[in-house]
Amino acid sequence: MKIFLLIADGLGDRPSKLLNDMTPLEAANKPNLNKMAYHGMVGLIDPIKPGIIPGSDTSHLNYLGYDPMKYYTGRGPFEALGTGLKLEPGDIAFRANFATVDGEFVVRDRRAGRIRKDTDKLANSLNMEIDGVKIMFKEGTEHRGALVLRGKDLSPEVSENDPHHEGLKVKEVIPLKKEAEMTARILNEFFIRSHEILNSHPVNENRVKLGEPPANAILFRGGGIVPDIPKFRDLHGFSGGFVAAVALVSGICTLAGLKNYTPPGVTGSLDTNIEAKLNAGLDALKNEDFVIVNVKGTDIAGHDGDPVAKMKFIERIDQAIGKVLLNRMDDVLFCFTGDHSTPATYKEHSSDPVPILIYYKGSREDRIENFGESQCRLGTLRLRGNDLMEVLKSHAGKAEKFGA
Amino acid sequence: MKIFLLIADGLGDRPSKLLNDMTPLEAANKPNLNKMAYHGMVGLIDPIKPGIIPGSDTSHLNYLGYDPMKYYTGRGPFEALGTGLKLEPGDIAFRANFATVDGEFVVRDRRAGRIRKDTDKLANSLNMEIDGVKIMFKEGTEHRGALVLRGKDLSPEVSENDPHHEGLKVKEVIPLKKEAEMTARILNEFFIRSHEILNSHPVNENRVKLGEPPANAILFRGGGIVPDIPKFRDLHGFSGGFVAAVALVSGICTLAGLKNYTPPGVTGSLDTNIEAKLNAGLDALKNEDFVIVNVKGTDIAGHDGDPVAKMKFIERIDQAIGKVLLNRMDDVLFCFTGDHSTPATYKEHSSDPVPILIYYKGSREDRIENFGESQCRLGTLRLRGNDLMEVLKSHAGKAEKFGA
Repeated sequence: MKIFLLIADGLGDRPSKLLNDMTPLEAANKPNLNKMAYHGMVGLIDPIKPGIIPGSDTSHLNYLGYDPMKYYTGRGPFEALGTGLKLEPGDIAFRANFATVDGEFVVRDRRAGRIRKDTDKLANSLNMEIDGVKIMFKEGTEHRGALVLRGKDLSPEVSENDPHHEGLKVKEVIPLKKEAEMTARILNEFFIRSHEILNSHPVNENRVKLGEPPANAILFRGGGIVPDIPKFRDLHGFSGGFVAAVALVSGICTLAGLKNYTPPGVTGSLDTNIEAKLNAGLDALKNEDFVIVNVKGTDIAGHDGDPVAKMKFIERIDQAIGKVLLNRMDDVLFCFTGDHSTPATYKEHSSDPVPILIYYKGSREDRIENFGESQCRLGTLRLRGNDLMEVLKSHAGKAEKFGA
Repeated sequence: MKIFLLIADGLGDRPSKLLNDMTPLEAANKPNLNKMAYHGMVGLIDPIKPGIIPGSDTSHLNYLGYDPMKYYTGRGPFEALGTGLKLEPGDIAFRANFATVDGEFVVRDRRAGRIRKDTDKLANSLNMEIDGVKIMFKEGTEHRGALVLRGKDLSPEVSENDPHHEGLKVKEVIPLKKEAEMTARILNEFFIRSHEILNSHPVNENRVKLGEPPANAILFRGGGIVPDIPKFRDLHGFSGGFVAAVALVSGICTLAGLKNYTPPGVTGSLDTNIEAKLNAGLDALKNEDFVIVNVKGTDIAGHDGDPVAKMKFIERIDQAIGKVLLNRMDDVLFCFTGDHSTPATYKEHSSDPVPILIYYKGSREDRIENFGESQCRLGTLRLRGNDLMEVLKSHAGKAEKFGA
C-alpha cells in the first residue's frame, strides 16, 4: 500500500465562542473526513512530545523520522533550503531580509518598504567569494531571502547583524567561539561589500527615483549549519515525494531527499489551490511509495485569530478530498493530521495535541461521527510524532516484524 | 496479591464482515471476561511501541521486563530453549529441520516427509564434540529441532546451510566475520558427520524400507547467541512460573528463570485443553507470586484467516475462566491480554494495539459492557509493553513507592 500523508498546518485548535464552543475542525462541514474517520482510526498526536510547542520545522522533521533534537540546527538552514538553493551538509545558512539603511548604517526600514519586485536581480548581484568562501544569496517571498556560506573551517557560532528594530545601527557580527572568528570576519566583509553593490544597483536607483526606500542592506539572523541527515529512502527503505509551498517545509523535505512534486502556482496561503496539491500528491504516488502534502491555510487563519476562516479552509480541504482523493484510494493509506496546533483563540503555536486520522481498506474502525479534537480523544491512536512513520509503514504493509 | 497473566496469543483484531463488522473479541459471547472488564480496568497496549509489529518472542520478552532491543538475539536461541534444552549464555543456537537430501546434497524434502516418529532417537545420535566444541541436537515438534554449539570462541556471525527451497544444494556455511571462522568450520563438519550418522541410522533404514523419505540431513537457520539475561526473580524481586506449549514462549520463560508448570498433553493448538492450562496456572501460584499462561489458538485462527474460529476459541477461554478461575481470585490480580494482534482479515501479525484487562478486588472500575477493541479505547489503561510488569506489580502491592 502507498502512503498519502496530508498535513494541515496548525490544524489543532481550542473551542471558540464564534463557533458555538466548537473548534474549527469540529464545527466544519466535512463529510469526507468524517466518513474516513468513521471507517478508520482516529486519535491525538503530540508532534514532539506532550508540552513541547512544535515549530513546523521540528515537527515535520520528527514526522518524517528525523529526531529534531539531533537534526534541528536552527531556522536558517531550513528556510534557505526552502528557497530552492541546493545546499550541502556543512554549509552555514541564515534567514535574511532586504532592508534600508542610511549613511550611518542605521536601519530605516527593516523590510525595505516590503519590496516585492526585482529581488531576484538584487540577489543575483550578491553572489561572491571572500577568502575562498563561496557566498550565495537567494531571494524568498517579499523582502525575505537566505544567505549561505560554503567553505572550509566555517562555524555557525556567530552573532547576527540584525538589530531587530528600526532606528538602531546594524550590528557587527561577533564570533561566539574562537573557531568562528573567520566566519564573523567574512560576514562583516560581506555586509560592507553587499551594501556597496546594492546602493549602486539599477533596481535601487530606480526605487529612489520613485520615492521608495532602497533595498541597500542585508540583515541576517537564525544562522545554523546544514545538518548531514540520512536520506529518507535509506531511513525507511522506499522513496518519497512532497508537495509544499512553504519554504520551511519544502526545505526539510528537500534535505531529506524527498522529490518535489509541488505544482506551479500553488501557495502557502488561504487561497491556495488545494485540489491541485492533492492531485500532485496522487501524481507523486505513481512514482513514489510515500508522499507528504502540506496545506498552510489552517495555520495562517490560526495566527490571524480567525476561527471562521480556519473552519472554512478545513471545509475546502474536505471538498478537495472528496473530489480528488476519496475514490482513488484502493491501494493507498491516507493519513490526515496537523504538524501542531495553532488555536485561533491564541494566535500562536500551542502544545495541544493534534487530531489524527488513518484510513485504509480493512483498517480497525473507530466509528466516531465527527472528526475533531473531542472525539479523537476516544480513538485508537495516541501517538508521538516519532511514532508516526512506524505506524504508517506497519499499517501500509511496509514494515518487517520485529521477532518471530 | 499474586499475579495471573493470561496471554491469548495474537488476540487483537480488526472488524470482520463475517462477524457483523465486529472483531472476534467483540463478537464473542464472554460473560466472564465482560464481568471482569466491568469491575476492572481495561485499555489498549502496544506490545513494543506504536507502529512496531511484534513477534511473540519480542513481545513476551518486553512484557516480562526484558528490553527486546537489548536481549533479542534472533529466533534460534529462543526456539532452542523451547525444546527443553538447558542452554547457557554464550551458547550459539539455530532453528533446525530434519530434511531429505540426495547423494549430491540436493534437498529433496525440506521436512523429510513431515517426519513425526522417532525424531528423539535420531536427535540423540547427533550429540557430539568437534574440536572441543560440544554440539547438542534436540528434536522439536514434527520435523523441527534445535542445534546448539557450546564452547569457547564461538560466534553467531555465520551464514545458514538451509537453501530454503527444494531442488537446491545444501549451502556451505560461511563466516560473516573473521572471528566466526572456527564456528563456520565446525558447522560444516557437523553437517557432514550428521549426514553420515543419519544415513545409516536404523530409523532411517526403516523409513526407506517403508518408502518414506529418510531424515538424513540437518538444515539450520536463524542462528544467534543465547543472551545473558537477568533472572526474573532478580529483576522483579519474586519468583514466577509459566504455562506454555509453544516452544518460542516457553523458551523465553525458561531463559528468564521462570519455572515450567505446563501440564502434559496441552498443546499450542486450537483444540488445547484451556482448563488444564488455567488449573496449572493456579497450581503454580501455590508456589510462585507470578504466573504467565499462554494460549495460542487465537493466533492460529488469526493466521488461518478464520475470525469465527478465533471468536469460538475466545469463547472457550471465557468458559474456562468461568469454571476454573473466577471464584478462586480472592488474592489474585488477573490480567488478560494478547502479545500482539493477528487480525483474521490480515492473517499476519500487525501493529494494532491489543485489548487488555486488569481485574482484582478493589480496583478502579471502567464499567464497560463489552470487552473488545472498541470499548477498550475508552479505558483507564494505555500502555506500552515495557510498562506491563510495573503496572501489574504496583496494583498487586508488589512495588515500592518511588520517592516519599
